[in-house]
Amino acid sequence: MIELAAQRCQLPRWRDRLQSADEAAALIHDGMTVGMSGFTRAGEAKQVPLALARRAEHEPFQITLMTGASLGHDTDGILADAGVLARRMPFQVDRRLRAAINRGEVMFVDSHLSEMSEQLRHDQLGALDIAVIEAVAITADGGIVPTASVGNSASFAAQADKVIIEFNVAAPEALIGLHDIYVPAKRPGRQPIPISAPDTRIGTPYIPVDPDKIAAIVLTQEQDSPADITPANEATQRIAEHLIGFFESEVAAGRMSLSLMPLQAGIGSVANAVLHGLMAGPFEDLTMYSEVLQDSTFELLDHGTLRFASASAITLSDAYGAKVWNNLERYRDRVVLRPQELSNHPGMSRRLGVIAINTAIEFDIYGNVNSTHINGTHMMNGIGGSGDFARNSHLSIFVTTSTARGGALSSVVPFVSHVDHVEHDVDILVTEHGLADLRGLAPRERARVIIDRCADPVYRPALAAYFDNACARGGHTPHCLEQALAWHVAAQRDGSMRALVDQPT
Amino acid sequence: MIELAAQRCQLPRWRDRLQSADEAAALIHDGMTVGMSGFTRAGEAKQVPLALARRAEHEPFQITLMTGASLGHDTDGILADAGVLARRMPFQVDRRLRAAINRGEVMFVDSHLSEMSEQLRHDQLGALDIAVIEAVAITADGGIVPTASVGNSASFAAQADKVIIEFNVAAPEALIGLHDIYVPAKRPGRQPIPISAPDTRIGTPYIPVDPDKIAAIVLTQEQDSPADITPANEATQRIAEHLIGFFESEVAAGRMSLSLMPLQAGIGSVANAVLHGLMAGPFEDLTMYSEVLQDSTFELLDHGTLRFASASAITLSDAYGAKVWNNLERYRDRVVLRPQELSNHPGMSRRLGVIAINTAIEFDIYGNVNSTHINGTHMMNGIGGSGDFARNSHLSIFVTTSTARGGALSSVVPFVSHVDHVEHDVDILVTEHGLADLRGLAPRERARVIIDRCADPVYRPALAAYFDNACARGGHTPHCLEQALAWHVAAQRDGSMRALVDQPT
Repeated sequence: MIELAAQRCQLPRWRDRLQSADEAAALIHDGMTVGMSGFTRAGEAKQVPLALARRAEHEPFQITLMTGASLGHDTDGILADAGVLARRMPFQVDRRLRAAINRGEVMFVDSHLSEMSEQLRHDQLGALDIAVIEAVAITADGGIVPTASVGNSASFAAQADKVIIEFNVAAPEALIGLHDIYVPAKRPGRQPIPISAPDTRIGTPYIPVDPDKIAAIVLTQEQDSPADITPANEATQRIAEHLIGFFESEVAAGRMSLSLMPLQAGIGSVANAVLHGLMAGPFEDLTMYSEVLQDSTFELLDHGTLRFASASAITLSDAYGAKVWNNLERYRDRVVLRPQELSNHPGMSRRLGVIAINTAIEFDIYGNVNSTHINGTHMMNGIGGSGDFARNSHLSIFVTTSTARGGALSSVVPFVSHVDHVEHDVDILVTEHGLADLRGLAPRERARVIIDRCADPVYRPALAAYFDNACARGGHTPHCLEQALAWHVAAQRDGSMRALVDQPT
Repeated sequence: MIELAAQRCQLPRWRDRLQSADEAAALIHDGMTVGMSGFTRAGEAKQVPLALARRAEHEPFQITLMTGASLGHDTDGILADAGVLARRMPFQVDRRLRAAINRGEVMFVDSHLSEMSEQLRHDQLGALDIAVIEAVAITADGGIVPTASVGNSASFAAQADKVIIEFNVAAPEALIGLHDIYVPAKRPGRQPIPISAPDTRIGTPYIPVDPDKIAAIVLTQEQDSPADITPANEATQRIAEHLIGFFESEVAAGRMSLSLMPLQAGIGSVANAVLHGLMAGPFEDLTMYSEVLQDSTFELLDHGTLRFASASAITLSDAYGAKVWNNLERYRDRVVLRPQELSNHPGMSRRLGVIAINTAIEFDIYGNVNSTHINGTHMMNGIGGSGDFARNSHLSIFVTTSTARGGALSSVVPFVSHVDHVEHDVDILVTEHGLADLRGLAPRERARVIIDRCADPVYRPALAAYFDNACARGGHTPHCLEQALAWHVAAQRDGSMRALVDQPT
């Protein structure tokens, strides 16, 4: 490994800083705040977290763990099970960590992905003790070339007292030059971020780091976890078709060109289906300004429909991963990875006019969206970047299948059990049944459209009955408050909302 | 009036376009969309709307009315009573219009104030037929110098097929030069907005208008309605004290200088009390980057504590109005009025690091804020600019008295009946009882702090009982769903939440 590392490390006397993962992990003490690389399973620190879990077996301690977004390799689950996590932010997708969060054992601070590093920079989250960042190369000045994600690593490196580098000799060398690192200045006095298109480059291809802060270099050679891709099914295919039909109608109405606007797509099978579907349409010269690039992005690049993609991470399936990582040169001029503060920046979403496509757990008849909580109480993953993009986008689109658990739960409800995206932030809702265009509509108008276009036909009469009864009581946003959450109470009690169908409220 | 107008009108042959308000109003037909100037009772079109209401007495017709924000002179109420309003956006504060909205007669599209003109520009709200804009002067090229607000007028003038100018000869001539008009380009291809501080000027002192679009000039001489200022009372005074103490502690912790960050303050007595209170503190060289400037802004400018104020409107009480309008020269270099798209721009709030202070109707134990709805159903005013500022601010602060209706209603509830600001967007909550600093806290931690610091002592045991029962059921955000809205159900039924105190849920 050392020979491979030597080829990509220009830092003088770097061998003096080599440590085992256990030695490096010993720099992390009880009560510390640690910032680690990693965003949607890409480019995460891999060895030091495991060493922390090992140490916790015989020496209990707890830390606050910050990352870019989710980690792969069950890292969050392993750390949660080891009892290492007192506090976790800004996002996670791990089954075991989620259980610990919902038991109230880990304090999870669910945050907009663009915002945490801003709070950190202005000392609103306490001091950052140590950063652990995966690198594919190290420059002569100590600069870190990150791997498949940038995430919050640039801010972590700037803010932390000490930096541990996980030097991954198995990461593709072609990653070098793919990144564009720019960190907004501390306020006041900040200048505008000079990005005017997805392909604008404004920074350096490495994360600047004070070499005196590099406390350890740990060699690794493990690959990122592959993306978990749920294959497209009939429902996701229909959702994609509705959305692509809508894009075509927007073009026909003269509201967008065939290049649309820069696309953002949350992770998952619907996003993949939509992007895949764009290949068949009349679209051309597309761009993405997103947070993560999946298989479908590279499929679209190969096909030529997509001209350029900007994001903070690349997360691929095993099959596609081999294809992309072995041919990265082919994409070099058409892909850029940025800090998540820039990929998800609300001002960029507004300036570029992003089309934001994100997944909802449920939405209500007035267009409020729940992206995070089951029955209003139990956390799934977190808000992630959906809020960063949705509020300031050209089009704020939320997609979901109309039911869950084999039809037992309606994804369209009278009153969402948790709100992540307020009615003011939602333009378009899509399920396999249809698309609701809410632009310029008042709540009472939204309700009719959402029930008719998006709800499963089985649940439509009960939703319409709720709405009619509510309208009889009046109000801008009519509700029968004593029945508003009855659908979720039934779901908690019976595991099903079908009782509401048989006896409409 | 014509002589006064002639002194401020450079447009050739402008007299040919003079019309009475009734003649100009005749340009507006049934089904049209009309954009009128006016923002927080400042600078609104005054004669044409009244002419519309008169005409509707004998000739029923309806329009979609867009403005900057709220109108004075009971204009919204008069139009609502006359049945002229089919649809209204993005904001209102009128008692009679509100009643019509809550009866479902007027379709109110409650929108982020920075966003409507963006949607209009990209043809997402249909065509704008006519703009009606109040002016203090007209340039030789037809440029409109607006009066006490800019609001959406620059976008309306650019988008509308025809423009009616209400030329207000009573508006202070000193307003000329106060405005800075810059309208973001249509996307794609937009460049960064080059504002880096509240006092950056980037545009023209007038709204550019194609002179061929000026269909009518109507002379007026009516003043703006004065601001309705509720005097400070003990509760608002305490809220201001908590907040100023917090600012001092932030300075002591090194997180801000004595100049703080640019301040945004919603309209109302708490905002006035906070700004007033800043005079007594150690603060210096303050700035504002807000949507509306009230009496307290000019008080702070006079006192010297405030160096510069940027906003989209000036709304003053009668007493302060005379003082300011007759001495506007004194403030010329220290105040700028911008389009609301810039004053409220989410990218500006993030770039400048605005301290956003807005009023809540209620918030819940997890920090979700309701700014708009009574009992989740009945609209008060609208979200206004609070969402524009809060999400991307340096500090997102919401204030309210801990109870309403003489203690019958708690402003701290288990579950808000409507969400305008999600938990992810709220840093600080303040009532007269104290201040809850939520930064970096998970929901279960937030609940303890909010109940202990912000709730009225009468309601604390019931809130704590709810929270304890909910925690026993588990979850990241524990709730007892079947009881979550019981407080509002009681409020609807009894006009009071006191039943919950006597019998904690």
